[in-house]
Amino acid sequence: MELIDGKKVAAEIKATIKKEVDDRLAGGFKRPHLAAILVGNDGGSETYVANKVKDCHEVGFESTLIRLDESVAVETLLSEVTGLNQNPEIDGFIVQLPLPRHINEQLIIESIDPKKDVDGFHPVNIGKMTLGIDSFLPATPAGILRLLEYYQIETAGKHCVVIGRSNIVGTPLSILLSRKNSPGNCTVTLCHSHTQNLKGYCREADIIVAALGKPEFLKGDMVREGAVVIDVGTTRVPSAESKTGYRLTGDVAFAEVAPKCAFITPVPGGVGPMTRIGLLHNTLKASSGKKI
Amino acid sequence: MELIDGKKVAAEIKATIKKEVDDRLAGGFKRPHLAAILVGNDGGSETYVANKVKDCHEVGFESTLIRLDESVAVETLLSEVTGLNQNPEIDGFIVQLPLPRHINEQLIIESIDPKKDVDGFHPVNIGKMTLGIDSFLPATPAGILRLLEYYQIETAGKHCVVIGRSNIVGTPLSILLSRKNSPGNCTVTLCHSHTQNLKGYCREADIIVAALGKPEFLKGDMVREGAVVIDVGTTRVPSAESKTGYRLTGDVAFAEVAPKCAFITPVPGGVGPMTRIGLLHNTLKASSGKKI
Repeated sequence: MELIDGKKVAAEIKATIKKEVDDRLAGGFKRPHLAAILVGNDGGSETYVANKVKDCHEVGFESTLIRLDESVAVETLLSEVTGLNQNPEIDGFIVQLPLPRHINEQLIIESIDPKKDVDGFHPVNIGKMTLGIDSFLPATPAGILRLLEYYQIETAGKHCVVIGRSNIVGTPLSILLSRKNSPGNCTVTLCHSHTQNLKGYCREADIIVAALGKPEFLKGDMVREGAVVIDVGTTRVPSAESKTGYRLTGDVAFAEVAPKCAFITPVPGGVGPMTRIGLLHNTLKASSGKKI
Repeated sequence: MELIDGKKVAAEIKATIKKEVDDRLAGGFKRPHLAAILVGNDGGSETYVANKVKDCHEVGFESTLIRLDESVAVETLLSEVTGLNQNPEIDGFIVQLPLPRHINEQLIIESIDPKKDVDGFHPVNIGKMTLGIDSFLPATPAGILRLLEYYQIETAGKHCVVIGRSNIVGTPLSILLSRKNSPGNCTVTLCHSHTQNLKGYCREADIIVAALGKPEFLKGDMVREGAVVIDVGTTRVPSAESKTGYRLTGDVAFAEVAPKCAFITPVPGGVGPMTRIGLLHNTLKASSGKKI
């Protein structure tokens, strides 16, 4: 069994991105600039955005953080988005989700210029991904593809079972793995809450992606010997042993499953660190070729 | 075994659409107006467009056909598209594919206003479909959903094997059948040229959609008793017995497969007639709520 070390891979990719930024600057090209809009003071969102800003700093990107009050008017948020759409200095930006309940998230997502939509959530980018056209890929699926690539895990002709059909992980990943591409060319079965005999599908899978958000859902008897298991789950489970009072738990019962696997991602330290890489890659792509 | 009669269902739906048009006109609403751009003189395209115009006439839509020469400049085609985008009289329009080789099809598709893209090929519409947001669905997948609905074929929790991952049939249908919807909630396995042991997947499927374009590919021994088989193939195979010199052949070896099925679509007369309904439905939707 080989452990897929997302932290290591992410660090290596960051170093490559930093080098690319240095090369671009030396060549008279622009420093990539990512902006983030953060509405309100949700603890999780604060942490995510702080990490994204930190990542930017590490790889040599410029970053701008726009903070708006929890009670911000939709019009004000839309006008901030328009400002970033029009600002040639900003290559890409994100609006950190979730948004307060009085704001229609889909409306905001669709107001972002698809060419600056580095989260890859705009329907134009999702549509291009579905059609196999070059686009900004959503971060988590893109991170998983990079891990498969890094560990040279063969996907062509393999049977991949994706558990969970969310718009940001399961569905796009099932599409990406089915495409005529590398990684890709998998035979993908997308499973979800209505799937009957999930165990049967999993036991026949070469690759299992668990992305349903149920701690330790995938048990040892659901996995065949030699499978590749990718664990996307990150649920906070209360823990007396941890200083924070909780521990991050994946969708895979790691202790039972790991011994049977050819490759497996741990939680934390597997898919998680790669998710942050996606945003950097998309921002690098968005600023590509732009002169100062 | 019950034969799925696409011709009958299409005729019934057309009658419903005609009634809806009459009601709208009586209520002071606008008559739906579909335009089609036909470039060159390809025989297949001529027939398809002529049928679409005929359909419009039957259901009471207005139709406009714009013919452009095979050698048309991209700029001229783009300016026709812009004209239709801006013309408030036109509710929806299509650019008949394929286009001559000197024209980038994707560029043209993306130049169509998504709100008038009644073929459902624009990335915005494909993206919304993928995200489960209301949009114009591509015609063939939408037609198949309607057949499943009409014959009250249960899809929730069923295993559906889709053979073929094209952008206009296999891929979108696999997404639509996976969604939290009715029809939908299937466990879908998307198979294609890289799939190993295709027979194994098919034999376990409750529903098989053959959309690979290989005449009589799906044989009797690939289908289990009681399966539902949807045949999307329509290949012209030379035939001495036909006046036209060819006959339309599906992807299913009908004589072998049909006796095992709970439901099966014939070719011709199954999915084909429903494909033309999709365009009418989308045009009806595009013109919805518009006053004269």
